[in-house]
Amino acid sequence: MKIEIFDTTLRDGEQGAGVEFSTHDKLRVIHALDSLGVSYIEAGMITDERSAAFFESLRDVKLQNARLAVFTQTCKASEAAEDNRLLTLAASAPVPVAVIYGKAWLYQVTDVLGTSAEENLRIIGESIRYLRNAGKEVIFDAEHFFDGYADSPEYAMSVIRTAYKNGASRVVLCDTNGGMLPDVVGLITTAVTEKFQSIGIHCHNDMGMAEASTVSAVLSGATQVHGTISGVGERCGNANLNTLIPVLQLKLGFDCIGDKISSLTRTARLVNEAANLSFNESEPFVGGYAFTHKAGAHIDGVRKAPRSFEHISPETVGNARNILISGLSGRSAIADKMNAYLRENEIEYSKDDSRVLRALELIKEREAAGYDYEDAGASLSLLIDEALRRRQHYFSLLSLKVIVDENATEASTVEDKNYFTASAIIKISVDGKEYLTAGEGNGPINAIDEALRRALTRFYPAIASMHLTDYRVRVLDSNATASNVRVSIESTDGKSVWRTIGVSSDVINASWQALCDSVEYMLGKEQAK
Amino acid sequence: MKIEIFDTTLRDGEQGAGVEFSTHDKLRVIHALDSLGVSYIEAGMITDERSAAFFESLRDVKLQNARLAVFTQTCKASEAAEDNRLLTLAASAPVPVAVIYGKAWLYQVTDVLGTSAEENLRIIGESIRYLRNAGKEVIFDAEHFFDGYADSPEYAMSVIRTAYKNGASRVVLCDTNGGMLPDVVGLITTAVTEKFQSIGIHCHNDMGMAEASTVSAVLSGATQVHGTISGVGERCGNANLNTLIPVLQLKLGFDCIGDKISSLTRTARLVNEAANLSFNESEPFVGGYAFTHKAGAHIDGVRKAPRSFEHISPETVGNARNILISGLSGRSAIADKMNAYLRENEIEYSKDDSRVLRALELIKEREAAGYDYEDAGASLSLLIDEALRRRQHYFSLLSLKVIVDENATEASTVEDKNYFTASAIIKISVDGKEYLTAGEGNGPINAIDEALRRALTRFYPAIASMHLTDYRVRVLDSNATASNVRVSIESTDGKSVWRTIGVSSDVINASWQALCDSVEYMLGKEQAK
Repeated sequence: MKIEIFDTTLRDGEQGAGVEFSTHDKLRVIHALDSLGVSYIEAGMITDERSAAFFESLRDVKLQNARLAVFTQTCKASEAAEDNRLLTLAASAPVPVAVIYGKAWLYQVTDVLGTSAEENLRIIGESIRYLRNAGKEVIFDAEHFFDGYADSPEYAMSVIRTAYKNGASRVVLCDTNGGMLPDVVGLITTAVTEKFQSIGIHCHNDMGMAEASTVSAVLSGATQVHGTISGVGERCGNANLNTLIPVLQLKLGFDCIGDKISSLTRTARLVNEAANLSFNESEPFVGGYAFTHKAGAHIDGVRKAPRSFEHISPETVGNARNILISGLSGRSAIADKMNAYLRENEIEYSKDDSRVLRALELIKEREAAGYDYEDAGASLSLLIDEALRRRQHYFSLLSLKVIVDENATEASTVEDKNYFTASAIIKISVDGKEYLTAGEGNGPINAIDEALRRALTRFYPAIASMHLTDYRVRVLDSNATASNVRVSIESTDGKSVWRTIGVSSDVINASWQALCDSVEYMLGKEQAK
Repeated sequence: MKIEIFDTTLRDGEQGAGVEFSTHDKLRVIHALDSLGVSYIEAGMITDERSAAFFESLRDVKLQNARLAVFTQTCKASEAAEDNRLLTLAASAPVPVAVIYGKAWLYQVTDVLGTSAEENLRIIGESIRYLRNAGKEVIFDAEHFFDGYADSPEYAMSVIRTAYKNGASRVVLCDTNGGMLPDVVGLITTAVTEKFQSIGIHCHNDMGMAEASTVSAVLSGATQVHGTISGVGERCGNANLNTLIPVLQLKLGFDCIGDKISSLTRTARLVNEAANLSFNESEPFVGGYAFTHKAGAHIDGVRKAPRSFEHISPETVGNARNILISGLSGRSAIADKMNAYLRENEIEYSKDDSRVLRALELIKEREAAGYDYEDAGASLSLLIDEALRRRQHYFSLLSLKVIVDENATEASTVEDKNYFTASAIIKISVDGKEYLTAGEGNGPINAIDEALRRALTRFYPAIASMHLTDYRVRVLDSNATASNVRVSIESTDGKSVWRTIGVSSDVINASWQALCDSVEYMLGKEQAK
């Protein structure tokens, strides 16, 4: 059976704190969602010139699978539909579908809208008819439907009846507060689908159950599912399509997007990137950790029988299994990653090759000292190269001096603290040639980064394309200021991304190690080209 | 009806990628969970000297509400329980409860364990009896129970029967793969609770439904709920106790932690901080965005009628509604803290006292800049004093210089990295007298700490009794090395403990702020004596 996927990432999703799409991003997201095979894409609301211009730019967009929708509201009490500015803007939007929301909870009608039960039905019916007459397919979002049904089933049902009578193609039951339990959503949806067809479901995640409630509604007869990529949205977010699509399609046998499901992971990452959100790697199905195994017993189990700790095959949704290397895992996980590296680099070796044993020994030592290679593949590969005596060094450090200076002319109060300056002096040699540079920054690490890059660019111009995208510090134990810290950095050359680490009692030293690894890893990649 | 909350943040939670607790952090988490009123705290597994030492440190820990548990496994096939090293370690752990897991899925018994159905029952029974004889309360985790029941209900039930017959106090049904739908979990749990009492539920989040499945099990008769703070855990995490406690208690009327639920938000933040995780502000109930309203219509609605867009009252769980400032939570908690401070110090004030408003304004500004006073009471009280113009400064900083030096005589390889030296030169004045000192350390912060203490001890001998007990660095955003960092330090004079913070793009500057606050806070306390 077909379940329509209705994506509202660009509308309800954009209500989420920190979520913001540029026009360019919105177009990228629309094409990605269309390729994924969703049925509807809600592109936003038209409220001003900027949003009107964005919808104008959709006029020439050709999609393969999805219908584009504009979101709008009903006219006001005692107002004719054609006199409502937002409705007229929606009616003239160059997209085939209009989604309109109206109230299905009497308490809301009287206490928020301040009008009568009958007038609420009038404005819903008239607004839908107005959009139908403008040639739109009209989908009606019944706001607060579940609270409304619990309060007065008769009134909630009369709202649905009004919507269909005036030409709506779908009526969507919304848990606007997100406060409903899945069982209740299922019971009420059943009561609705016994009387009406083409029912949709729109859940929020305030109970952490948006997906469970949505599934419950589908099992009770709803045929259209609203949600957003990664569940972005106001407060605790909307139902997460990345979860719902595989659950409905792989676990329950509904057809949502057919075999395009294998591009789910890629699409999820693209949309998060467009929204400038850091991807939640723990996300079910699509997250980098979703099929990552850390506990020793689990790793052993998943090797012998994947079903043990994987409820689906990661490839189905375009994801991959990942085995972490850490204190909790046995040596076999380290060996796995190392073997993969050796295979990739076509290095001949036998299991008891002394070089391989030496590499394993080195990794073990480092991990005991606080290094953590589970998320620092670039540093790991350099370390293996080191052990195999095939690591190449691209520069030697002759000296490094960092100076942090405070030149207060008055008392140092907490209110006055932007008087620190940081500079670094670095001397390196490349092929016997020495070079001395300095760098300044808003902190010592930043200053070192500047100085090192300035020095190296002279010898390796490719360095110019590289920059750091993430910098993290973790204090490993709590012996106050003498503690060891682990610094982890992420770098990119615009094409790929890699992570490196350093450990020391000195945050500057740890950062320096991670920086050097990053630079040498990149130069190694360049050379291999 | 009472539902026991079983927290496994320190055990199953620590399996999560990126989750790591120091011994000091674990103790803080244990006390916070105990204050929250959970029934059981699973503190980890004993596998080596380090974990044994940690459990030894729990011997003198006194808790009000929770029972501490050690996690372990059954003996192996053809092995006697007393010959299993991990079992003997668990048996001698100084905690009252042992949790032991065993297989309830025949496929796992034959394909992963490689033994017979009967031998599996033998090792489960004998291991439980062994722990009972060592005086432990024994809780049995039936691994893969739901897959096992779907495969062979008879065998899965015989595993439960064996556990109870040998003295288990609770049997916990585990959805180890996290691949079950809530309805299925409910049906199978009903089948179990029709025959057995004292059943627990342990769900993973691979379907995004760990909480819904747990609730389904409780509605089907389970009386013990396993989960972690913020749902941390391997792959997609465990069931989230921050969500489950309010859903079970506020929505369904079960008693989990009574009126201690009002400290839920605070505890959730403390545990995330201890795990060095960045808090997910979209989390249901406890997140900073959970009651944050961005859409205009929602803000209007929530003002006229809170029920419109808030499914519970935020204060119930110690959270707060947030309309204008997104990203910041706990505002009323700060106002509370400030009022408490004013009362304690017997400072006369009225609610619209301009000094008080100025202090709130200042806190607001600081929090927007990344300061977080929730866990830094000493810095908060100095800031309030500042606003009330009653802060006393005990020294002025005239100049500070930090030098980090590297004098490598050979190539800087990752294998050779203990050649950094850090020194600090500091000049302060106290009552017009200037004093210049230097300090050395194994990092720049350590060097500054040494120099500052050396300088101040001359004027304030009490400083000698003070030392730092914790030092943390948190990167606030991810613009690589130019990011802001928040440094948080904990200090003690042997009698009391206080926390201070600093924020800057420069880790040295941020550390300096926190150090100064700590010293001045201590000198203020000394003077008040």
